[in-house]
Amino acid sequence: MKKVLFFFTGILLASTLSGQTSQQEADARYIREIYDMALTEASCYDWLYHLTKGIGGRLAGSPESAAAVSYGRHILDTLGMDTVFLQPCTVPTWVRGDADQVRIVNSEQIGTQELHALALGHSIGTGPEGLAGEIVEVFSLDEVEELGRAGVEGKIVFYNRPMDPTQLNTFSAYGGAVDQRGIGASKASEYGAIGMLVRSMTTRLDDVPHTGAMGYAPGVEPIPAMAISTNDAELLSRLNKKEAVRVFMRSDCQRTPPATSYNVVGEIKGSTHPDEIILIGGHLDSWDVGEGAHDDGAGCVHAMEVIELLRKMNYQPKRTIRCVLFMNEESGLGGARAYWQASNEANEYHMAAIESDRGGFTPRGFTFDADDEVFTEKFQQVYEWLPLLEPYGLSLSKGGSGADISGLKIQKGLLAGFEPDSQRYFDYHHTAIDTFEAVNKRELELGAAAITSLVYLLDKYGLK
Amino acid sequence: MKKVLFFFTGILLASTLSGQTSQQEADARYIREIYDMALTEASCYDWLYHLTKGIGGRLAGSPESAAAVSYGRHILDTLGMDTVFLQPCTVPTWVRGDADQVRIVNSEQIGTQELHALALGHSIGTGPEGLAGEIVEVFSLDEVEELGRAGVEGKIVFYNRPMDPTQLNTFSAYGGAVDQRGIGASKASEYGAIGMLVRSMTTRLDDVPHTGAMGYAPGVEPIPAMAISTNDAELLSRLNKKEAVRVFMRSDCQRTPPATSYNVVGEIKGSTHPDEIILIGGHLDSWDVGEGAHDDGAGCVHAMEVIELLRKMNYQPKRTIRCVLFMNEESGLGGARAYWQASNEANEYHMAAIESDRGGFTPRGFTFDADDEVFTEKFQQVYEWLPLLEPYGLSLSKGGSGADISGLKIQKGLLAGFEPDSQRYFDYHHTAIDTFEAVNKRELELGAAAITSLVYLLDKYGLK
Repeated sequence: MKKVLFFFTGILLASTLSGQTSQQEADARYIREIYDMALTEASCYDWLYHLTKGIGGRLAGSPESAAAVSYGRHILDTLGMDTVFLQPCTVPTWVRGDADQVRIVNSEQIGTQELHALALGHSIGTGPEGLAGEIVEVFSLDEVEELGRAGVEGKIVFYNRPMDPTQLNTFSAYGGAVDQRGIGASKASEYGAIGMLVRSMTTRLDDVPHTGAMGYAPGVEPIPAMAISTNDAELLSRLNKKEAVRVFMRSDCQRTPPATSYNVVGEIKGSTHPDEIILIGGHLDSWDVGEGAHDDGAGCVHAMEVIELLRKMNYQPKRTIRCVLFMNEESGLGGARAYWQASNEANEYHMAAIESDRGGFTPRGFTFDADDEVFTEKFQQVYEWLPLLEPYGLSLSKGGSGADISGLKIQKGLLAGFEPDSQRYFDYHHTAIDTFEAVNKRELELGAAAITSLVYLLDKYGLK
Repeated sequence: MKKVLFFFTGILLASTLSGQTSQQEADARYIREIYDMALTEASCYDWLYHLTKGIGGRLAGSPESAAAVSYGRHILDTLGMDTVFLQPCTVPTWVRGDADQVRIVNSEQIGTQELHALALGHSIGTGPEGLAGEIVEVFSLDEVEELGRAGVEGKIVFYNRPMDPTQLNTFSAYGGAVDQRGIGASKASEYGAIGMLVRSMTTRLDDVPHTGAMGYAPGVEPIPAMAISTNDAELLSRLNKKEAVRVFMRSDCQRTPPATSYNVVGEIKGSTHPDEIILIGGHLDSWDVGEGAHDDGAGCVHAMEVIELLRKMNYQPKRTIRCVLFMNEESGLGGARAYWQASNEANEYHMAAIESDRGGFTPRGFTFDADDEVFTEKFQQVYEWLPLLEPYGLSLSKGGSGADISGLKIQKGLLAGFEPDSQRYFDYHHTAIDTFEAVNKRELELGAAAITSLVYLLDKYGLK
């Protein structure tokens, strides 16, 4: 009896194992086909050309952002989805004007010199006459507090803590420095500063200034805030060691009234589990300088390309696949908030949501996030697919997902961030050089293939 | 007794394990320090600037290659090595002249049009009057044989098989197409062709022609061979479907007499195992167009940076570390052959040799090669270090090493090729756009850190 049972179990085990093996082989073949298709027939690079060269920088609420909404909708309309619609949202607006100017004035060491500067997004302007003052260099918000009103009042606070170049992941280095840009002006104003300069958020030493979002705490007197290039930050710091350096700054930018804009949403209804949503998204808006190519034209065309590839493969999803091009990630998440609210109110369940918002560079994998209660269970299921994704240079790890999908966490699905190589991202981020030319076609296509492969596995097997 | 023995074994096991763990932790810390140093104090990017912007394209035997030899020696001299010397070698020489020209002549469809073209390295020239003929488009060497003399004689054979874009590793795609460039002219000449054109070796569609080495089989009548850009190859192919297209080609290039040049060799004598050599190298020569930045300025400065980093860390190698900047990788391996001969004659043992000759892109790992007899044993030892290297995005796999070190295989050590991400390499390879600007500082530094980490482990633990 024992022998028979053993024999019987053996057969069962063997057939289960061989079933698994052949399923894995079939998945491997399918993923290989996705990659072949992406590397030969993808449209994402052409779409990116239109978003960048055709439309350009897409500040939320700007005419360019409206053009991008139309274009995104148009492309999704051509991809045979079940529904494509615009989801209204309210976005804060701001215009730069045309006079960003920072100048060292009458330095004993170098005389007068223009610096490479950009007003920070949502800063107030200086008015047409500009403002001038002595700089006080600091390396942290705490230092401003320590200097207090005596050290800061009437001066221009210059934040000069660099991004840590030893961080392998440049996003970690960014995270460790960006508080200066985001709330540095507010902190400086608390102690009576008249203006704020910040070293650009990049590990490079160059002449390219990086803009980005900032805000003022409630009740704080707004003061003008501008970024200068890292080379100029080094110069200012050097001069400041030997003399009290005076700087003139001028910007015409202004905060304008909130406007209505839109997320672009396209959906393919799932055939057997329509209530389990798999979202893929990027954000349509960008900063006004440059063309928003890596940030985040790449993410938008990645998301659209997933739809195109699945369609070209004649793949019929079991679950609902939703492509979302979010509006206003850069300064307020107006689009994301509208999406979360509608989704949560409708009691939707995003089984998985993937955002691509770290550029169009060569893929390295995905990072996953979820509510603590469900993370381990969900992540373990995805991690079983590693052997299928590793041959494409992809790793799977715990980490952030994306700002636009973060509010879906309460639905207790799995959130994922597409993770391209991060080394070059902050060369371009929020600058005039984030252009189409900075994106490599193959790298972009490989990103689309990687995301499509994950979507395929998520849709086929689901997540318990 | 059993109990006591078990207890005793337990202690032994625990102490061995904890010994291993603390050793691994120490190695992890050391490698982290190597990376910190590379990302903050490395000189490789500045050295690359001099090799590219200061010297430029470094065709073996050219004045620029001589300048590069002097510069390489100068830098190694500053790095406190035990010996630095020049190793003479004989290199074939060739000059391009200044008239590379390919033109579609009197096409019914588009009239006359200039194409983007470069003579292939070591091709003969056309003479000042150029040559003209009808093209015959082929996709393989076999096709020329099939067409035979009847189909080819008096014509210009146009090889147009693209690199396969679906290959994830672009070097595999290159390997699958480069026979056309290397021996296509020779094959065409066998059947009476008067000239040869080849589609540039890249997966991109653009206007940038790629040069590279070619040769003529003994006894074959040499005919001029040139590369045209992929956009132009597509154009030619399109036109050729509707008419017999005539092309004019002209080049002034010529083969010149062999010259003496040099490898640059620097050595740190090992303290306890001086007879076990660990070589790190790249090649100093490049093509004449562009600045040889990725190919292979990056590899040379990687090799030199390993020495600088070890020195800055005050690392005293147990084994002999040799930095070799090879001459003439691009067309004949003159330097490498001289090195192999000297090394083999001296009965040297290269325990390990690492070449960096795949560009200065973001690191993905190393590929390893060795004599069949020893490969598995050697590779297994290295593979045990994977947990130390994986956190830096590095993988270890079987694969090619490098042309310059391939002749050391008979010494039965382990050969390794540094493997950066390959997606962008063939955008630049052998072109006018392989310039300093195409190399990212952090990516270059991370490559140097990766190689230094491997050298550290090889030196510390050796290979049985």
